[in-house]
Amino acid sequence: MTNEFGPLSVPRRLLMGPGPTDVHPRVLRAMSTPITGYLDSAYFEILDEVAEMLRIVYETRATTMVVAASGSGGMEAGLNSFIEPGDTVVMCSYGHFCERMILMAERLGANVVPVRSEWGRAMDPQLLVDALAANPGTKLVTAIHAETSTGVLQPLPELSRLAHDAGALFMADMVTSLSGCEVRVDEWGVDYAYSGPQKCLAGPPGLSPVAVSERALETVRTRKTLPSSWYLDLDLIDQYWGPDHVHHHTSPVSMMFGLREALAMALEEGLPTRFQRHASTASALRAGLTALGLELPVPAAERLNQLTLIQVPDGIDDNAVRQQVLDDYSIEIGRGLGEFRGNKWRIGLMGHSCQPGNVLAVLSALEKVLPAHGYEVGVGAGVAAASAELAKHDIRVP
Amino acid sequence: MTNEFGPLSVPRRLLMGPGPTDVHPRVLRAMSTPITGYLDSAYFEILDEVAEMLRIVYETRATTMVVAASGSGGMEAGLNSFIEPGDTVVMCSYGHFCERMILMAERLGANVVPVRSEWGRAMDPQLLVDALAANPGTKLVTAIHAETSTGVLQPLPELSRLAHDAGALFMADMVTSLSGCEVRVDEWGVDYAYSGPQKCLAGPPGLSPVAVSERALETVRTRKTLPSSWYLDLDLIDQYWGPDHVHHHTSPVSMMFGLREALAMALEEGLPTRFQRHASTASALRAGLTALGLELPVPAAERLNQLTLIQVPDGIDDNAVRQQVLDDYSIEIGRGLGEFRGNKWRIGLMGHSCQPGNVLAVLSALEKVLPAHGYEVGVGAGVAAASAELAKHDIRVP
Repeated sequence: MTNEFGPLSVPRRLLMGPGPTDVHPRVLRAMSTPITGYLDSAYFEILDEVAEMLRIVYETRATTMVVAASGSGGMEAGLNSFIEPGDTVVMCSYGHFCERMILMAERLGANVVPVRSEWGRAMDPQLLVDALAANPGTKLVTAIHAETSTGVLQPLPELSRLAHDAGALFMADMVTSLSGCEVRVDEWGVDYAYSGPQKCLAGPPGLSPVAVSERALETVRTRKTLPSSWYLDLDLIDQYWGPDHVHHHTSPVSMMFGLREALAMALEEGLPTRFQRHASTASALRAGLTALGLELPVPAAERLNQLTLIQVPDGIDDNAVRQQVLDDYSIEIGRGLGEFRGNKWRIGLMGHSCQPGNVLAVLSALEKVLPAHGYEVGVGAGVAAASAELAKHDIRVP
Repeated sequence: MTNEFGPLSVPRRLLMGPGPTDVHPRVLRAMSTPITGYLDSAYFEILDEVAEMLRIVYETRATTMVVAASGSGGMEAGLNSFIEPGDTVVMCSYGHFCERMILMAERLGANVVPVRSEWGRAMDPQLLVDALAANPGTKLVTAIHAETSTGVLQPLPELSRLAHDAGALFMADMVTSLSGCEVRVDEWGVDYAYSGPQKCLAGPPGLSPVAVSERALETVRTRKTLPSSWYLDLDLIDQYWGPDHVHHHTSPVSMMFGLREALAMALEEGLPTRFQRHASTASALRAGLTALGLELPVPAAERLNQLTLIQVPDGIDDNAVRQQVLDDYSIEIGRGLGEFRGNKWRIGLMGHSCQPGNVLAVLSALEKVLPAHGYEVGVGAGVAAASAELAKHDIRVP
């Protein structure tokens, strides 16, 4: 074993997968700021800023705070805090991360009622109507707004309404949606929303910013049993973020600086402008991919702008193509997960990665790489179509 | 609500509390490196480096990896993974963080046997002998090596031996000890060790590097029930860190870069040199504090070098003194926790904060602030004594 590892060396990537996405240089710089303690009054001011900015991006007056764990930690923090053993939880499932949520709830001893629907499609709310009718007394309904594994926008307002009509709490994953498309926590009645900085916010992976309704917090505070996880107990996290700043875990200061800066940048751009940037850039990507003859399996009306699902052409080696795009162009695109493994690609255009130049770069790479693996395309056709689409929009990159 | 929060602004602090401590500029810079994806082969190489360097600093051949949560997350990951409801866990307790561990184990449904001893003193191993004799079939014994709330070094090798003699697994908190004093995971037979980068490693808070023995991993893999937390399941985390890199949570890439750099710097300095730096610098702090007439409650033979416990003099307002040191000198020192709240201070000298100049700075601040709060000291006496002690040592700051 050597004791000389030398300085860190990292290849420069263009991140166009499902996340993390490129972190904006201003956010990277914020993370290199010398830190304060996590019980320092100056740090509490930064936490207050983060909470206030989260209320703006989530469009809520509810309690906002940050779980010191990745997005899956935010997912589990909700389940851990709301579910007591034996509680009935109706869980909408149409993708890999929905299935992860089910696994978590099962571990917590919930009576899990999965409501499964086709991957790559928006869910028919009638399925939830039926499940709730069959399961009176349901405590919690869960759904994912923008399933990162499928690239589909789900009918969240409708699902939330149905949950509330049944008297249940509604918990929503907004990991891939937050600041990339409209998110209205209060108007839609979402009791618990969680997200991550590493998608449309152009921040670092490793945190989970959340919004919790008063009703949801009250549910945690009045449980009969304590949540099995102390680290992911939303009541304890709330007590640290609240005015008393009760000692809990050591806050990840550097990442919080990064998230703070990412939120400030999102608000400087303005949310409507930001949503439009995601929409316009994605339309150019779709035009380019279509010009290359690639199939986009999600119906047009249900597509996410943040993430585009692509059918791997018959006979093409999914992995070999992605690896060559990475090796030759240093561009990361995403593989399929679960039942999409090996037969789907996912291209993300989120946050700082969501730029016109990146659309052209990934299309150009595919134009070169796909023929080498047996899929002929008209070289130049993809970038030409994308460029024509880009010319229709006024896209300013922050 | 305004949409203009402007750029991040953070006061420059000198962190001489219980942690986090000052992050080395080279580590801060590493965190500002543009990121890769967490399934990128280049990132896996960095994870492999981190794991290898952790084996060196932990002095182990066991499996090493990083829990994507703060030190308390590493604590809970162990308990969550090893304990099944009803299991007997004998928990040594002589400080605030030991009590936190007990709270966590109780939530997990363990049959918790606390073995409590005096705060601020090393534990008498006979107490553990008795507890194990009274609780045959104990599955797990827990202890903290260097209790951050008390500044005491505990007799870990002896406690570990007793646990093994009783057939139990031994889990040890090495948050404040790792890379600040000797830590020999294999020689001492520690089955699960966890730590944090934000103490003696001069890294950012928010991660928990761990070492897990094969026996401990086998315990997790052969449980009858699944751990209630998916996020903190050591078997799943191991599957991501292992050769198959099975998809789990999104890895906190920027912080991992920081931890990687912090580990590389610790190895460049050399562990024996680093331990000596902590010892020499602490001896100067103790000389200075003693010259100011302050009482150090921990017996000399049991003191940590990383963290010094100080008795708040009678009639002195703990909080007012700390706040003035922070406001006037931008130096953070620690308050007491639990039964030490209001009557103890804690001064940390860890990692990059462990420097001769910092010893003089904090003593000079105390010489000015303490008299303003009614505790007379000979101005200059503290720094003179510390300087005389520093002159005896050859301390090189990395």
